[in-house]
Amino acid sequence: MNPASSILLTDLYQLTMLEGYYRQGMRDIAVFEFFVRRLPERRNYLVAAGLQQALDYLENLKFTSEEIAWLHTTQRFSQDFLQYLSALRFTGDVYAMPEGTVFFSNEPILRVVAPLPEAQLVESRLINLLHFQTMIASKAARCVLVAPDKLLVDFGMRRAHGAEAGLLAARAGYLAGLHGTATVLAGAQFGIPIFGTMAHSFVQAHDAELLAFEHFAYAQPDNVVLLIDTYDTEAAANKVVSLKPHLAKVGIKIKAVRIDSGDLAEHAHKVRQILDEGGCQEITIFASSSLDEYAVQKLLQAGAPIDGFGIGTYLDASADQPYLDCAYKLQEYAGRPRRKRSEHKATLPGRKQVYRQFSADGSLSYDVLTLEDDVQPGIPLLLPVMYKGKLLRQDESLDEIRRRVVQQLQSLAMPLRDINEQHDYSVRISDCLQDMANKFDNNSN
Amino acid sequence: MNPASSILLTDLYQLTMLEGYYRQGMRDIAVFEFFVRRLPERRNYLVAAGLQQALDYLENLKFTSEEIAWLHTTQRFSQDFLQYLSALRFTGDVYAMPEGTVFFSNEPILRVVAPLPEAQLVESRLINLLHFQTMIASKAARCVLVAPDKLLVDFGMRRAHGAEAGLLAARAGYLAGLHGTATVLAGAQFGIPIFGTMAHSFVQAHDAELLAFEHFAYAQPDNVVLLIDTYDTEAAANKVVSLKPHLAKVGIKIKAVRIDSGDLAEHAHKVRQILDEGGCQEITIFASSSLDEYAVQKLLQAGAPIDGFGIGTYLDASADQPYLDCAYKLQEYAGRPRRKRSEHKATLPGRKQVYRQFSADGSLSYDVLTLEDDVQPGIPLLLPVMYKGKLLRQDESLDEIRRRVVQQLQSLAMPLRDINEQHDYSVRISDCLQDMANKFDNNSN
Repeated sequence: MNPASSILLTDLYQLTMLEGYYRQGMRDIAVFEFFVRRLPERRNYLVAAGLQQALDYLENLKFTSEEIAWLHTTQRFSQDFLQYLSALRFTGDVYAMPEGTVFFSNEPILRVVAPLPEAQLVESRLINLLHFQTMIASKAARCVLVAPDKLLVDFGMRRAHGAEAGLLAARAGYLAGLHGTATVLAGAQFGIPIFGTMAHSFVQAHDAELLAFEHFAYAQPDNVVLLIDTYDTEAAANKVVSLKPHLAKVGIKIKAVRIDSGDLAEHAHKVRQILDEGGCQEITIFASSSLDEYAVQKLLQAGAPIDGFGIGTYLDASADQPYLDCAYKLQEYAGRPRRKRSEHKATLPGRKQVYRQFSADGSLSYDVLTLEDDVQPGIPLLLPVMYKGKLLRQDESLDEIRRRVVQQLQSLAMPLRDINEQHDYSVRISDCLQDMANKFDNNSN
Repeated sequence: MNPASSILLTDLYQLTMLEGYYRQGMRDIAVFEFFVRRLPERRNYLVAAGLQQALDYLENLKFTSEEIAWLHTTQRFSQDFLQYLSALRFTGDVYAMPEGTVFFSNEPILRVVAPLPEAQLVESRLINLLHFQTMIASKAARCVLVAPDKLLVDFGMRRAHGAEAGLLAARAGYLAGLHGTATVLAGAQFGIPIFGTMAHSFVQAHDAELLAFEHFAYAQPDNVVLLIDTYDTEAAANKVVSLKPHLAKVGIKIKAVRIDSGDLAEHAHKVRQILDEGGCQEITIFASSSLDEYAVQKLLQAGAPIDGFGIGTYLDASADQPYLDCAYKLQEYAGRPRRKRSEHKATLPGRKQVYRQFSADGSLSYDVLTLEDDVQPGIPLLLPVMYKGKLLRQDESLDEIRRRVVQQLQSLAMPLRDINEQHDYSVRISDCLQDMANKFDNNSN
């Protein structure tokens, strides 16, 4: 089974609840919303991502006969309920913020309106898909903001958490503004530009470093980026200088060198000097090794002459904030708003919409979180994307989403773009939404 | 394409290096080892996991014609090289520590001995597979050590990083000693016990909480665990007391209640009292909500009357340590040891073995890291698992691995089992290995 496409990639309680709903004939329309309760520390905004995969999942949702047969072997479910499951499809409507939209705490980025069992069943995987890409896109956007003019490449697949994380981190990073990824499958699957040349093992496998450089240049003449820190970074930079004229004779240009260890700023300065003095001004310097937005910012603030960065583990694992406090919650059932009141986890009831207000200069001013039918000034952010289980339009291209992110990040007030300090953006709860929440607190269940 | 099985789930540099090796006819035997350079903070040991998936990957490695065709479209590779790739299989030998083995920094847990291109190509995905499960198994083992007599269940799929992480976190958690998972697919794929009953939405979808409890009990009579914190935890506990005799009349037993918010210790005390005073001593209390080994330890030290824990996000994202500083490095090529000397990333050359010494009481005494052919006293930890691309034996069952972990954790000296303080275990570098490393530092490349 492909874990990414099996409907059994869900929590058991979805199925036990569905049997409960089935027994009671509870299949009225339910409204669930996905939102982030609180932004993590040092995240002043988030970037919505993962919608395409979420919609693919909903559109193709079904139990295969093999899956039904396995559920039968668990002896947990009745035969008639399994029969019912085997015919289940997602027939609901979905509203969502377009991928690449900047959003804030408590703002739904996706709303599912569907018969209760369908809307319930999809919870676990929808969270799994939206959570991960949103987290990664949000972190990648921070990298882009600190190094807007640099080549930024995702290098993190090896320490991403599994196969899908590696693949989708490349997607989320690219849509948020990175220039590409080392992950080949992301090129094949999403058309994302791929980058890569050599590891230390290539150098080590040769008896001499210079020979490794030469061999690589002949094998990949259009893609000569030489890794120079296997033994002695500055000595290797000198070898690059000496190699250049030999390669030039056969028409091969050295594009860049890569430094992957040590004090990157210090090495970059020394290497830049060696290259410049050797007449290699056109050879750029690419750096990697434990980089994230904080490290890149420090390197640039220190004036390190680095032209591009490979951002790996810390991006793909979102290492400083490896999860979001997100939820997918029932807000209405059978025409009645619903509210969970669990301590510190209370939700706002009803079908909601977010209206965004802009200042005269085009920057974000404040958002209003209100009920769907309470029209407010500003731009509504949740748009219909699926109707009765069918997509309303073709998927946007990643490049369209990427352009949206650029625009959205530019519309953030400068303090919000700070990667180190917490700054709040105003999300106002409308009176009608607050009234409804208060009313529910006074009812007992 | 299924990301978990595509050979294109790799870094581009593997392919560009392979073209370099191909052009030069470099296909002598290479030895690569996977190891963790430094243990993360608050990890005194790690638990090896992910070998089964790594070996599956090696055994089935091939480029499909579709993948070759896509690589052709990138115009990065020559036609004869792509021809060569399409015939490439993994034909090497593999040595590894059995899954569930406790290990320490710089100790290889896997050694690949294969023609250079094969051993090189598999780097990215091997790291991806071994890194994730080792990280999760290591964290799960800590949960087991702080709550050895409690029911511990993985609840984390929704915030795991993608599909494969959700599935394999369940596997890694179970082999390290958790009792099961909420993830249904882990039951179907690995035979792991699955757990789950209801979410808040089930309660909310009903007009009254008591009705939700009743409906659930009728639908899942053998699995009655009631979630009691949707509105008012203690009020719900009283409803459970009142419901018990009604369900008893139709032969249904309430097994447990679950608390998922607020001060879990305080609620558990109050709920325990309500249940006990209501004659429900047999109903157990299960807790969830932002739990990890630290939170579980605090709850138990505070005497919270909790019988089981659902451990979610913090486990599946390994939230306090979301990555390991691991590597897969070339140690020998064409019969000559190789050493990378990059600053802070220098490796120990040669084919290595780890010998483990035990004290008279059966606890771990120290390990010796040495060269393969230098036999030392103690137990060698790396064993042959694949020969010429074929598995040497059937996969171990997860239950066998699980028993090994119990044994291994029992053999750790008490300070090493501490989840809060760093304690070092002695890994001695043998003289012959140190000599070889020194020799290499004196050579130039």
